[in-house]
Amino acid sequence: MRITIIGSGNVATHLAAAFKNAGHRIVQVYSRDAQHAALLAYHVKAEPVSDLTQIDPETDLFVISIKDDAIGPVAEQLASYNKLMVHTSGATHMYALQAYAENVGVFYPLQTFSKTREIDFRDVPLCIEAANADIAKELTELAQTISNNVYTVDSAQRKILHLAAVFACNFPNYLYNIAQQLLAQHDLDFNLIRPLILETAEKAMTSLPGNVQTGPAVRNDQTTMDNHLALLQNQPDLQQLYTLLSQGIIKMDIDPPADK
Amino acid sequence: MRITIIGSGNVATHLAAAFKNAGHRIVQVYSRDAQHAALLAYHVKAEPVSDLTQIDPETDLFVISIKDDAIGPVAEQLASYNKLMVHTSGATHMYALQAYAENVGVFYPLQTFSKTREIDFRDVPLCIEAANADIAKELTELAQTISNNVYTVDSAQRKILHLAAVFACNFPNYLYNIAQQLLAQHDLDFNLIRPLILETAEKAMTSLPGNVQTGPAVRNDQTTMDNHLALLQNQPDLQQLYTLLSQGIIKMDIDPPADK
Repeated sequence: MRITIIGSGNVATHLAAAFKNAGHRIVQVYSRDAQHAALLAYHVKAEPVSDLTQIDPETDLFVISIKDDAIGPVAEQLASYNKLMVHTSGATHMYALQAYAENVGVFYPLQTFSKTREIDFRDVPLCIEAANADIAKELTELAQTISNNVYTVDSAQRKILHLAAVFACNFPNYLYNIAQQLLAQHDLDFNLIRPLILETAEKAMTSLPGNVQTGPAVRNDQTTMDNHLALLQNQPDLQQLYTLLSQGIIKMDIDPPADK
Repeated sequence: MRITIIGSGNVATHLAAAFKNAGHRIVQVYSRDAQHAALLAYHVKAEPVSDLTQIDPETDLFVISIKDDAIGPVAEQLASYNKLMVHTSGATHMYALQAYAENVGVFYPLQTFSKTREIDFRDVPLCIEAANADIAKELTELAQTISNNVYTVDSAQRKILHLAAVFACNFPNYLYNIAQQLLAQHDLDFNLIRPLILETAEKAMTSLPGNVQTGPAVRNDQTTMDNHLALLQNQPDLQQLYTLLSQGIIKMDIDPPADK
């Protein structure tokens, strides 16, 4: 397939590379920033453009992977080419494209991407939505060329997925950061706790998290929780967070495993 | 070394197996529950006992791996044997043993254990504390027979580690549970989000979490956060948690990577 990548951020970068590796042709890479466009275009052997008027109409698909609030305006400009257009945003309704064109869909990779970290795209869940059945078939076939985990997810479900991803990724990472800061404050090495972080995530690969919850809160071990709150006495924000999370765990409707 | 295991929970089970695999002899396994004692004792070819009066004095080390509030009373009963005693608790001071004996230490494996999940003990950080330098040497040598990650950590530091472990393990698992529940409420498969959970943890293996924070809060993307809060309108506890975690991320003193 001939694919034009609109955007040069983390998602655009990883998607473009995955398409290229699967044998598709990346026609152009567009970014407002000419240097960013040039860098990604170089990697995927495409033409860099930094002005939407330079878009080559000889393409099959526009993949719009830019900031959420820019999706609509860019789609409006691209609509005149009458090509299939998708966006890659978890938080944006397909209407953002349908307002301007009929041949549209969504191609949402549910993963956290860093430019500096390699990722095996075959493991990345790809969530597809399409304006009609023909487009759904085309996007699903395209998705299957780069991922083994292709799902059909409508806009309402995708909003929930995006929210769930915040709880599953952004918030845990913030808690890792708190742990790292606590250790650093007491001259302790973050490596001490890294295996615990990984094992906790790996447990969730084969178990439902509610079935493997451990810690003082799920045991309702008030003494340990009080000791922890005392250690945080100079950090009221963390005390509040500790209390709220612990209360949530205490209220969990589960039969916890023995923790000791 | 001849080792007696006091306890039959997750930590006792994994430690006993690791010691046995490293060539040590497990003399006895004690548990108040005779069946639990028998099961673990069978696995490590030891004698099961369910009464502390049946303890065999021909041992080199008592490993006390039981509920925190039972450590002191059991240590008091074992003190008469005049053997080296350690506890395995993150939240308990070494004084809990020193109150009754001089030959004491702490042997704290910083990992989350489930009886049903295999773990490579060589990767588990072992935190050692000892009442004197000779014991420190002996415990460190013992620890090195089962783990490649042996640290010397005093009681004050261990309290911080235990607190940090709650933020790095128990709380993230609870957030995974929230994500899973949100998906289930909308007929979405938890498998959709599992790769994201794992990748987030794997990023923390090589990066500091503060350097790889992503999501709407670190971009201060108020529109997306408001949309998420609206999705949680019938779940005020989750709204409160979402707000508190997002406020913490917004206040993070970091230079976030581009998220798109």
